[in-house]
Amino acid sequence: MFRTHTCGELRISDVNKQITLSGWVQRSRKMGGMTFIDLRDRYGITQLVFNEEINAELCERANKLGREFVIQVTGTVNERFSKNANIPTGDVEIIVNTLNVLNTALTPPFTIEDNTDGGDDIRMKYRYLDLRRNAVRSNLELRHKMTIEVRKYLDSLGFIEVETPVLIGSTPEGARDFVVPSRMNPGQFYALPQSPQTLKQLLMVSGFDRYFQIAKCFRDEDLRADRQPEFTQIDCEMSFVEQEDIINTFEGMAKHLFKTLRGVELAEPFQRMSWSDAMKYYGSDKPDLRFGMKFVELMDIMKGYGFSVFDNAAYIGGICAEGAATYTRKQLDALTEFVKRPQIGAKGLVYARIEADGTVKSSVDKFYTQAVLQQMKEAFGAKPGDLILILSGDDIMKTRKQLNELRLEMGSQLGLRDKNKFTCLWVVDFPMFEWSEEEGRLMAMHHPFTHPKEEDIPLLDTDPAAVRADAYDMVVNGVEVGGGSIRIHDAKLQAKMFEILGFTPEKAEAQFGFLMNAFKYGAPPHGGLAYGLDRWVSLFAGLDSIRDCIAFPKNNSGRDVMLDAPSAIDQSQLDELNLIVEMKENSN
Amino acid sequence: MFRTHTCGELRISDVNKQITLSGWVQRSRKMGGMTFIDLRDRYGITQLVFNEEINAELCERANKLGREFVIQVTGTVNERFSKNANIPTGDVEIIVNTLNVLNTALTPPFTIEDNTDGGDDIRMKYRYLDLRRNAVRSNLELRHKMTIEVRKYLDSLGFIEVETPVLIGSTPEGARDFVVPSRMNPGQFYALPQSPQTLKQLLMVSGFDRYFQIAKCFRDEDLRADRQPEFTQIDCEMSFVEQEDIINTFEGMAKHLFKTLRGVELAEPFQRMSWSDAMKYYGSDKPDLRFGMKFVELMDIMKGYGFSVFDNAAYIGGICAEGAATYTRKQLDALTEFVKRPQIGAKGLVYARIEADGTVKSSVDKFYTQAVLQQMKEAFGAKPGDLILILSGDDIMKTRKQLNELRLEMGSQLGLRDKNKFTCLWVVDFPMFEWSEEEGRLMAMHHPFTHPKEEDIPLLDTDPAAVRADAYDMVVNGVEVGGGSIRIHDAKLQAKMFEILGFTPEKAEAQFGFLMNAFKYGAPPHGGLAYGLDRWVSLFAGLDSIRDCIAFPKNNSGRDVMLDAPSAIDQSQLDELNLIVEMKENSN
Repeated sequence: MFRTHTCGELRISDVNKQITLSGWVQRSRKMGGMTFIDLRDRYGITQLVFNEEINAELCERANKLGREFVIQVTGTVNERFSKNANIPTGDVEIIVNTLNVLNTALTPPFTIEDNTDGGDDIRMKYRYLDLRRNAVRSNLELRHKMTIEVRKYLDSLGFIEVETPVLIGSTPEGARDFVVPSRMNPGQFYALPQSPQTLKQLLMVSGFDRYFQIAKCFRDEDLRADRQPEFTQIDCEMSFVEQEDIINTFEGMAKHLFKTLRGVELAEPFQRMSWSDAMKYYGSDKPDLRFGMKFVELMDIMKGYGFSVFDNAAYIGGICAEGAATYTRKQLDALTEFVKRPQIGAKGLVYARIEADGTVKSSVDKFYTQAVLQQMKEAFGAKPGDLILILSGDDIMKTRKQLNELRLEMGSQLGLRDKNKFTCLWVVDFPMFEWSEEEGRLMAMHHPFTHPKEEDIPLLDTDPAAVRADAYDMVVNGVEVGGGSIRIHDAKLQAKMFEILGFTPEKAEAQFGFLMNAFKYGAPPHGGLAYGLDRWVSLFAGLDSIRDCIAFPKNNSGRDVMLDAPSAIDQSQLDELNLIVEMKENSN
Repeated sequence: MFRTHTCGELRISDVNKQITLSGWVQRSRKMGGMTFIDLRDRYGITQLVFNEEINAELCERANKLGREFVIQVTGTVNERFSKNANIPTGDVEIIVNTLNVLNTALTPPFTIEDNTDGGDDIRMKYRYLDLRRNAVRSNLELRHKMTIEVRKYLDSLGFIEVETPVLIGSTPEGARDFVVPSRMNPGQFYALPQSPQTLKQLLMVSGFDRYFQIAKCFRDEDLRADRQPEFTQIDCEMSFVEQEDIINTFEGMAKHLFKTLRGVELAEPFQRMSWSDAMKYYGSDKPDLRFGMKFVELMDIMKGYGFSVFDNAAYIGGICAEGAATYTRKQLDALTEFVKRPQIGAKGLVYARIEADGTVKSSVDKFYTQAVLQQMKEAFGAKPGDLILILSGDDIMKTRKQLNELRLEMGSQLGLRDKNKFTCLWVVDFPMFEWSEEEGRLMAMHHPFTHPKEEDIPLLDTDPAAVRADAYDMVVNGVEVGGGSIRIHDAKLQAKMFEILGFTPEKAEAQFGFLMNAFKYGAPPHGGLAYGLDRWVSLFAGLDSIRDCIAFPKNNSGRDVMLDAPSAIDQSQLDELNLIVEMKENSN
């Protein structure tokens, strides 16, 4: 037997017991004739003691142990003279009798400590060592606990977890598919699912009533911090429900997770906001409501006074940063630089301080009287000491998005985005379609199976761009943690939707015929939602990137640098698949 | 709100309540001036009543409802005059006030009943209708319950579920990989995991100590009834353990599943049998021990009497079928035909009946005296009324496998393979290697990471084919439901293993360098096991094929006939992946 206890288990009540432990050498130190070793496993750290006077040979062997050696010891539990209140085993130590080296270890390329000296690249290459760090492992432990709580909640409500296939058909609508050549069906390809969307809808047609799955999803997109080529969804679908039923069910799940995993009781119903209000007041479909700074539109107040930037703008809007009138010229210049960065793209920034006496001191004082500036101040409800920041532009939506970036930056600068405070929001009434410049056609904002709002259905024929959908997103602290919709369950309406999206009937049939056909055999009204598991874990763990809650993540080039994947494959594999690789001139 | 109750919920205590139900029309019948409709959902069936005299218009609309229409009704719960004791809602019926057709339905291509009239092909094409059948849905409900119990058991023992990636590197050792071309890394491919084997070992190097995952695995193999291109493993790994620890842990899981899902208490420890005994006595590494018919070898008894078939055979062995002396000549001829089928390949069958007076009457009486035949009878411990069946051949293993097929066939014919009786067995001490005729080299019988038995390690240099492994399979009713091994945790031993398997150091490095490298940084002793989820569900549900416990299975050509996948993809997709499809002359 390799151990009688783990390294996190022994307490003062175990004193004098003969025990066996196995684990890794965390650190070692000599003091007088004694050698102390911290032995580590997943469960904790226990101090081992070797006494030169009692057993010189054993102590000498202990002195030769390197960091991360794997050892097994037997010994007696002893009460520590100087206790360590920081760890649960801190009252005891082990007087070692026998030492068995189970495996040696090279010196790790970075220190296995909470604050490691290893950079991102080296930690990813040696991910198996990085995962030894408490800070990383605890994220994965949280992930494990979250899936337990998710399943507990959904099972209690009668949801059935159903595994849907990973090898399905390719559907060009949406993001880019990963494809898998089929050997048995030469020249044909499977695709990996971007989500189990159509399959879960088929399960509703099957009468499964309440389905869920913690499902791997795949998108071949260019990557960034919160995206991975494979990610995990808590995918859910319900029959005989309206939007309100789904929102209640999954708001309940969110509250259950907050309570069980973060100890946060969220008693009130979550706020709700229409998509158009979210865009109008926050310039984002996922506003961070941990702080205010709601947008105020100033077109009525500030146009027509000869300031051509504003006079020619389609949109003038601003935010009021409480107490930020202390911002120096240098800080304001930095904010101006911030909004002018190419990825934000504003032309400039207008600011106004509210002085102690209530007067307004702005960067555009030469164009506006104090009376107009006071009107502006009133519009914001600004107080002495506040700072007003204003952007303007030709394109209303673009300018709002710029103002959103400024608002988030100010929230961060003013310390208003506390990772331990959580503000949850449902964004509802999304538009059904959005115009794609690239494709030159309307695209489904959620997906082509989303149900239009009943009252907007007539607009499908006359003004499809104005149609709103029964679609909803949950946003926590400015992160979209999930979303869903009521689905179309009527074959004719689904066919019409494909038509508006520019599918020929043949293309719709080829790609989604199975679904439209299924709808002809008695499809119930249904709808659902998917939560992003990676995002929820990141949010609860306070991580900046979903990568840190994934055991073996990929880098921005989609590579697993530890496995060195992807890689070239054998010619025989290509031959069996009837494939030839032909590199383009400019690729690589 | 679509419903106040489900169709499985109402009882006599609900009489007089106003309720709303939604569901599918299961069947409809007219009696006198009344129309009765069975309304179905996942939870049950409730009888609806429409009375022509009370509401002629409503009743007429009810009469027009077709099978599988989706409807919503409101009405009053009423006590039934003639109760139906077969269903939990059988005491009540609903006197309907309002009827709302939520969706119409074409006539299904087969009946949605427990015993359907639909053949396999049509049911697969319309799998979403097939899944409406209780018989199919209940398999998936069992699957859901099994994953709950698996997780409950493992979580209680401190196992952490960790998701490992689906896009990994290709490793030609083992079965054929499915590969995924990478757009961002032109000319390179990911592979889908055949199992998370190396990744779970890395998690042990990371100190995760106890890992599990209910993981999708992928093998591009030719298919048969108990194989699918994607299947699901309950994948587990533990550190600081010996074989005995793992066997105890997962025998405990098996007992937990039997108890919670089948109500079967398995008090005794499972039987254990060495691989060599399993082959010797049952001709199989997964013997079905629900019945006896242990092989008896007859070389010593039956050679040298001038029967050239036996005299020239390397192996002569038989089974004793209790009470089967009643087999007619026709039945015996059919058994002879059975063993001569090409997929079994025996040359012929020798049989011997034990008569009521104890004499033996055999098909080879002209070669053997009654004294020799009595000796043979004694070897089997056969009694009057028994039938002895004997095969012989040049190749010991091949003949044993033929005899295994005969034994299983006799078990079936004699009704000894009751699906509600479960006999569990650990097969242990597998050989480390097996000779591959195809490859002309030793192959790992389990996989290259399996630890040889400590006492057999010296044989690695002298007689590798004789080396046994710390490997074990669990077999229930002749089905291998899982298996595993203690792994190598020493980089040098792992390198040696690759050498014996014919890997050049370069090839070993290219394919498994990450693992051998990881072993240099303090790998703990570890081992694990994987259970086949599909097989466990099939076993518990009494299914002949794992297909019936998979929501959307593929056929023997790896096709999903419902989705019509795989399929051709767009040229633009191929271009982005730098791929050209070139069909071979003889393909398709």
